[in-house]
Amino acid sequence: MRKIITIGREFGSGGRELGRRIAEKLRIEFYDKEIISQISERTPFTEQYLEEIENHVPHILYPITVAKTFFNISDYAVQQAQTMFSRQSHLLHELAEKSDCVIVGRCADYVLQNYNPYRIFVYSDMESKIRRCRERETRYPVLSDNEIKQNILKIDKARSKYYSFHSEQEWGNKKNYDLCINTANVSIKDFAEVIAELF
Amino acid sequence: MRKIITIGREFGSGGRELGRRIAEKLRIEFYDKEIISQISERTPFTEQYLEEIENHVPHILYPITVAKTFFNISDYAVQQAQTMFSRQSHLLHELAEKSDCVIVGRCADYVLQNYNPYRIFVYSDMESKIRRCRERETRYPVLSDNEIKQNILKIDKARSKYYSFHSEQEWGNKKNYDLCINTANVSIKDFAEVIAELF
Repeated sequence: MRKIITIGREFGSGGRELGRRIAEKLRIEFYDKEIISQISERTPFTEQYLEEIENHVPHILYPITVAKTFFNISDYAVQQAQTMFSRQSHLLHELAEKSDCVIVGRCADYVLQNYNPYRIFVYSDMESKIRRCRERETRYPVLSDNEIKQNILKIDKARSKYYSFHSEQEWGNKKNYDLCINTANVSIKDFAEVIAELF
Repeated sequence: MRKIITIGREFGSGGRELGRRIAEKLRIEFYDKEIISQISERTPFTEQYLEEIENHVPHILYPITVAKTFFNISDYAVQQAQTMFSRQSHLLHELAEKSDCVIVGRCADYVLQNYNPYRIFVYSDMESKIRRCRERETRYPVLSDNEIKQNILKIDKARSKYYSFHSEQEWGNKKNYDLCINTANVSIKDFAEVIAELF
């Protein structure tokens, strides 16, 4: 059986860094934005356009299976999200078949459930997330703490909607994960080394 | 600063075993039922009586600080729970002052927050918890799966009430912990060794 590790993460919590470091330590593949790039290569759509679809789940409260029943399937936004998700799921299966890997986001824990992935969720408190955003992103110094906070909340809301829309599960609910890591008071580098030893 | 590790846990999830193994690996003190024993030694109450108080939080929905305001403080059940909690908190501080340790339950993550403890919550799915109960407890073979399940739910409800009553926080909500570990598909022995390396 393949060793597949999936990482769900709150924006600014360091989930991407943790995933990258675990993959490096285990010497296995790491996928995050690389997935968008690969879909872009196979379709006429730009990476930017694909990211926009992912961050703007159709504004309905029902999961996609319900939407299929009650909404006109030709509804453009639903169809768009469905097509994107279907392409992504197909690609995730391809990647999982190819080799052991760490995958960040993309509902991979749900899509690849038949591979029995090790499902990690990474989170932190708002103060730590704002600090991390400031340290990492050059464009943040011009934003106030409150503006960064609003940005974090907006992105996490989109991630949560995307996840629940496609998986019918609650994003970040610990019962859907094997390990939930609060990065507020830890060294992500040390933690990645320790987690890698689990495998 | 002391190295204090606190373990919250769902019944049957293996939290006590994880805590014991981490303490063994780090060669530090381990406290679980030992706390009840020590309180019993210092008071006229038996261990059984003290355990009963802990598992029967007064049946009110308000946390203790609110209860103080709206309820007559002479209410016997509230007073009993308060006295027990106060004794326990005092003892927890004594233990934390004395040496590094792992403490299971007893709202230790909340009571010892000034020590900046590393707060672990251990959980699992119902099927795994029932299996673990069967493996560990000799009296379970005579109970049906459903009876064990009802027992688990009852104990966890009491733990949840006890925690929220005294801490005004939600028991098991990941934001109150540094690490949440799902023990459904892991070896607790291996996990304890890996976690110990974090310290």
